[in-house]
Amino acid sequence: MNINAIFQFLVPKESKFFPLFIKVAENLLEGTKVFKELTLEKNPENYNNHIKIIKEIEQKGDILTHDIFTQLNSTFITPFDRQDIQELTSSMDNVLDYINSTCQRIKVYKPKSLPIELPKNADIIIESAELIYFSINNLKSYKNYEKIKDACIKINSLENEADDLYHIAASALFDNEKDPIELIKIKEILQTIEKVTDAAEDVSDVLKTIIIKQA
Amino acid sequence: MNINAIFQFLVPKESKFFPLFIKVAENLLEGTKVFKELTLEKNPENYNNHIKIIKEIEQKGDILTHDIFTQLNSTFITPFDRQDIQELTSSMDNVLDYINSTCQRIKVYKPKSLPIELPKNADIIIESAELIYFSINNLKSYKNYEKIKDACIKINSLENEADDLYHIAASALFDNEKDPIELIKIKEILQTIEKVTDAAEDVSDVLKTIIIKQA
Amino acid sequence: MNINAIFQFLVPKESKFFPLFIKVAENLLEGTKVFKELTLEKNPENYNNHIKIIKEIEQKGDILTHDIFTQLNSTFITPFDRQDIQELTSSMDNVLDYINSTCQRIKVYKPKSLPIELPKNADIIIESAELIYFSINNLKSYKNYEKIKDACIKINSLENEADDLYHIAASALFDNEKDPIELIKIKEILQTIEKVTDAAEDVSDVLKTIIIKQA
Repeated sequence: MNINAIFQFLVPKESKFFPLFIKVAENLLEGTKVFKELTLEKNPENYNNHIKIIKEIEQKGDILTHDIFTQLNSTFITPFDRQDIQELTSSMDNVLDYINSTCQRIKVYKPKSLPIELPKNADIIIESAELIYFSINNLKSYKNYEKIKDACIKINSLENEADDLYHIAASALFDNEKDPIELIKIKEILQTIEKVTDAAEDVSDVLKTIIIKQA
Repeated sequence: MNINAIFQFLVPKESKFFPLFIKVAENLLEGTKVFKELTLEKNPENYNNHIKIIKEIEQKGDILTHDIFTQLNSTFITPFDRQDIQELTSSMDNVLDYINSTCQRIKVYKPKSLPIELPKNADIIIESAELIYFSINNLKSYKNYEKIKDACIKINSLENEADDLYHIAASALFDNEKDPIELIKIKEILQTIEKVTDAAEDVSDVLKTIIIKQA
Repeated sequence: MNINAIFQFLVPKESKFFPLFIKVAENLLEGTKVFKELTLEKNPENYNNHIKIIKEIEQKGDILTHDIFTQLNSTFITPFDRQDIQELTSSMDNVLDYINSTCQRIKVYKPKSLPIELPKNADIIIESAELIYFSINNLKSYKNYEKIKDACIKINSLENEADDLYHIAASALFDNEKDPIELIKIKEILQTIEKVTDAAEDVSDVLKTIIIKQA
């Protein structure tokens, strides 16, 4: 417990942050669902339709992140540690950034086909985003902290699942793909999509920190 | 406004940081100009002359960064938040680091030719460094904050320009380059140069934070 | 000197952190030694035996890191700045993470042979880990700070050595390797192993910060 935490016992908490956090988590969840649609798209000529929507969602996320940072810098009392608010916001923003980066690589590299593991990756990412959304919605009330803890454990295990999936996909790629340029394209798409779940795990790490401090 | 900010109202501000910030920004601007010369160099045998100078500038930047951190750790009252000083310094250092990394890749990979977009990239980077230099020079006086805000908006739009340039360059590369090893070389040079403007945007984010807090 | 530092003069320091730091440094050193064994392994079929052990060491490191963070979040008075404890822990964890990432790339990419520079890299990494272990063991007593400073200088020069080694290895690779897929494999292994010494330098940067603040 630090100085900031002491003040929090003395002064009513500001609650304007929670509606913004929820908007960020909602927007992220929306992005993961559009990404799933992209991974199921049969016609490569339609990829850019989905990619364009994800880009817009990512830009909306940037604006929300900026709003939270502006609030943070002009607010004396915060519902929890300033740095934790900053890291929670940045880490959620990172998840969306890596989804968008994956899409941008698909757009620029134009691979002959997407990695066959990608829809499974999208499912893992959607589930992680749902758990983040659930946690953010329950963050306001101490009595829900046990549920958030469980959600964080689940996010961690999804990250391990994504990690295993990456290893399977990359091994298959290096075993089978003989065209070096196609190999480069798919390797980089797989490496970027793997960072999405890493970033989701970072969100769960911040959530765990917030819960421990408030306990 | 936080605890540190309260102290700042009570105690005269230390000003030894500003001359050091200015030196860092000057050194960075110098680095971007040498980088432009490299991108215009016709004879690949002369690349290393420019690359060597950039390496020296980068090492000078490391020493200045180290000086600021030493000052910071032994100073009780700082002109603005300790963490913001740390991030402002690190982020300016990162811009130069990525310029140097781009050069090191050119040196090690020895591509047959440099990407044709590189001089345009260099122009964007010089303009960003000029805006950073301008902002740092105006940071000492509150009445200039509106001008810094405008500079930050311009740095952001330069980052978008660099991003578009990267997409055009990388798309052309993947469309046209049939030699996979040349493709790898140019791809990594383009990816590194793009991080330079990302890092410049990080500088503008810290500048904006400092301005909001002091307002 | 900040608020936290003032409290530290008034209240006896908690010392439960030091045994945990030592365990982290020991575990890291252990990991570097197993990595050396991997680099000397003649039979590629045995690579995975060493890689599996390093993975276990990395997971043990994660648990220790988590323990320190939990302690940190529930402790009012810390032996030095909270953020420095956090960064010291994370940075040691990163060293091990990059060793593990290097191994995972070897496992997934199955290169025809490992880069010939790798045992030399392993020596540099072991020496860095020994210096970190030495520093952590001496961190409790002010009178050892001069020795830690010397260790940090040595870690920095080892980073420069690793950097030179990377440039030699990568230049040779791009000069000689004509198979683009083998080139990709070795390039990425070299890039990851280079990050290990960068991460060790980050550890030494935090150590230096801690020493300056306590002085």
